[in-house]
Amino acid sequence: MRLLVIGGSDAGISAGLRARELDPTADVTLLVADRYPNFSICGIPYHVSGDVPDWHHLAHRSAADLDAAGLQLRLEHRAIAVDSDAHTVTATAPAGRSTVIGYDRLIIGTGAVPAVPAIGGLDRLGPADGVHVLHTMDDAFAILRTIAERRVVRVVIVGAGYIGLEMAEALTTRGLTVTLLEQLDQVMPTIDPELAAPLAAHLRDRGVDVGTGVKVHTVGHAATGRLAVGTDDGDHVADLVLVVTGVRPDTDLAASAGAALGVRGAIVVDRGMRTNLPDVYAAGDCVHTYHRLLEQHVYLPLRSTAHKQGRVAGANALGGTATFAGSLGTQAVKVFDRVVATTGLRDTAARAAGFNPATVEITADDHKAYFPGATPIRIRVTGDRTTGQLLGAQLFGHRGAEIANASTPSPPPSATGPPSPTSSTST
Amino acid sequence: MRLLVIGGSDAGISAGLRARELDPTADVTLLVADRYPNFSICGIPYHVSGDVPDWHHLAHRSAADLDAAGLQLRLEHRAIAVDSDAHTVTATAPAGRSTVIGYDRLIIGTGAVPAVPAIGGLDRLGPADGVHVLHTMDDAFAILRTIAERRVVRVVIVGAGYIGLEMAEALTTRGLTVTLLEQLDQVMPTIDPELAAPLAAHLRDRGVDVGTGVKVHTVGHAATGRLAVGTDDGDHVADLVLVVTGVRPDTDLAASAGAALGVRGAIVVDRGMRTNLPDVYAAGDCVHTYHRLLEQHVYLPLRSTAHKQGRVAGANALGGTATFAGSLGTQAVKVFDRVVATTGLRDTAARAAGFNPATVEITADDHKAYFPGATPIRIRVTGDRTTGQLLGAQLFGHRGAEIANASTPSPPPSATGPPSPTSSTST
Repeated sequence: MRLLVIGGSDAGISAGLRARELDPTADVTLLVADRYPNFSICGIPYHVSGDVPDWHHLAHRSAADLDAAGLQLRLEHRAIAVDSDAHTVTATAPAGRSTVIGYDRLIIGTGAVPAVPAIGGLDRLGPADGVHVLHTMDDAFAILRTIAERRVVRVVIVGAGYIGLEMAEALTTRGLTVTLLEQLDQVMPTIDPELAAPLAAHLRDRGVDVGTGVKVHTVGHAATGRLAVGTDDGDHVADLVLVVTGVRPDTDLAASAGAALGVRGAIVVDRGMRTNLPDVYAAGDCVHTYHRLLEQHVYLPLRSTAHKQGRVAGANALGGTATFAGSLGTQAVKVFDRVVATTGLRDTAARAAGFNPATVEITADDHKAYFPGATPIRIRVTGDRTTGQLLGAQLFGHRGAEIANASTPSPPPSATGPPSPTSSTST
Repeated sequence: MRLLVIGGSDAGISAGLRARELDPTADVTLLVADRYPNFSICGIPYHVSGDVPDWHHLAHRSAADLDAAGLQLRLEHRAIAVDSDAHTVTATAPAGRSTVIGYDRLIIGTGAVPAVPAIGGLDRLGPADGVHVLHTMDDAFAILRTIAERRVVRVVIVGAGYIGLEMAEALTTRGLTVTLLEQLDQVMPTIDPELAAPLAAHLRDRGVDVGTGVKVHTVGHAATGRLAVGTDDGDHVADLVLVVTGVRPDTDLAASAGAALGVRGAIVVDRGMRTNLPDVYAAGDCVHTYHRLLEQHVYLPLRSTAHKQGRVAGANALGGTATFAGSLGTQAVKVFDRVVATTGLRDTAARAAGFNPATVEITADDHKAYFPGATPIRIRVTGDRTTGQLLGAQLFGHRGAEIANASTPSPPPSATGPPSPTSSTST
């Protein structure tokens, strides 16, 4: 059995590892476009901040670990064509060579690429000008190079999703002056404004200039040799501009090979991670993801999801019958000394999906208040009024909040929905 | 509506508060046997340790809070008889007076009392001799008095359940020399031995002399004026002996009134917390508790359960239709710098209940290992092989483990059951 995997990030690596777990004799080859297999994209902000001084530590596993697990890695091999009839993949190798590799089963884990918004100037400017995206280790190195070489003082970050938030922290921690601009009315648009507001306040407390409801329309060179970021709210001068407004699935290769694309252009797979092409599976940020509560596929690029999908693809490529159980979109983000966590559907998403939601908020201490060091956690829980089904939860609290001691919330929770007539709760 | 509540701990207080939430005109009176309404019994070890220097802070709510919520507290009123036909309760008041109080609905929340084991000498010795139990604030004060007055150096704790563990930490923190003796083969008998072993090791690291599989048969005066604890493994000398071998429901009052008793002698209630007596409800450590997975009533005295049952009783006493959803026995215990948490059924309990369980163990970091300060969490998960149902989980980790960042476990988990053929997992 020759299993070929395109991609060396979470989906590809976990697919390969799962295949080798199930069949230690399987011939598993991974084509890795860069030199950084199994690196934590999510960890990049902590290298930029200096929390993780050595970038090698961002690798979940070393090359030696992967080798010991029996994965054959071909670094700097970029797949450029899949022939699913012939069961071959063509890849460019270092020094421009091209190679054709045969397979019995193929797993596509090409991931995502930054979704660059329609902002004037971004088509002409790049890292050499101090204008950056952030999705790969090379992107991280380019940012660090700009910081070093351009003597960066001021940074404008466009987009206050979780990478924007983490990079606002990272660059502030490095001593830079950071302006964080978000087109929507709040930071972290995946949580309720009630929790986004204290998160923005915490960013401001730590010196980040946060602008929400601000549309960036141009980025260009300023007369001073610096960069100018034009918004409908005035101009900002910057030495480095970081555009982190989300990602889109990287599907050029799969689409060229005839793979069907669906929501947001992601590769269509069934819950066994099978594409419409014979013997071709796909997993991770390049595919759509089954949502457990919505009971349909959505585009939901998350590392933990990629990992799970990769394992399903790896098992099934070897003839297994694994099923991806689905995602709830669970996410946790640390921003300075606060953490936001969210799972499932919040009110707006639930209503859009046809539920009849109610959301209540309580504030509970992470441990009993009498014990020193208790910190409050704001918890918003969303349920369906009609069926009583739990739909989702969002938490906002301190980074040091304790994991273990469940605390009884104080008596009457404030509620955005009506109080429930009965209140039997489960552990 | 005159609602009378017997008991001022978690069940009684939450019943009263819930009643007042639903009907701010309800006449809610609580008979509190001591002078410490709504105190955290669970917090006592942290006062003994010195972590909570002022014992007043162990109150979840002050007398003023409870007054503001509309609860009429009668402190030092001990109920001695219930006449459910006449709808009256007789209580002794301070200075030996006796009083009869009428009610429309009654909630019994008398809680539990220490279960003193069959150890020779315990029937004759008490706090004046340095032999203690620990279940009330008065018990705590008595222990502190003994420590101060008897110049305590050595302590023997009999019983390594969670109170024994917490008190071992508390008394060690005070500088005393502690021996912790447990009749069963492990500390914290509610968790698997695989996690109890590192917990015992941590206790020993911190200087606690831990003896498991040790049966204590006598406690008596030693010739030196100290105490002698005789075991089948030799004798221990102590200045203070603390017997914490569990609790039994406090049901003398309810039984005398004709309340039916069930498992382990606990008051029988339905899931609306109704007893067999007209207009009489009961909640908390004095009643049996519906277990969600076992789908039957068991004796499971826990603060969080008492709180929830109290709210159900409070709602239903006012004519509501609340149902106690059931408990999973969720518990978390801090011992020095480690925390153990458990929920649901572990392997042995599941097998005894007729399930076909498998338990697997993984070790995951609390956050990604590349970020400074990651600590491992050992996680044991139990499921049913036949149905795939999740039955329970146990965790062992560091106290400072972070709450928010779910980390991907390293590839092949060690398993006490066979590896699962498919591995689709949910968030």
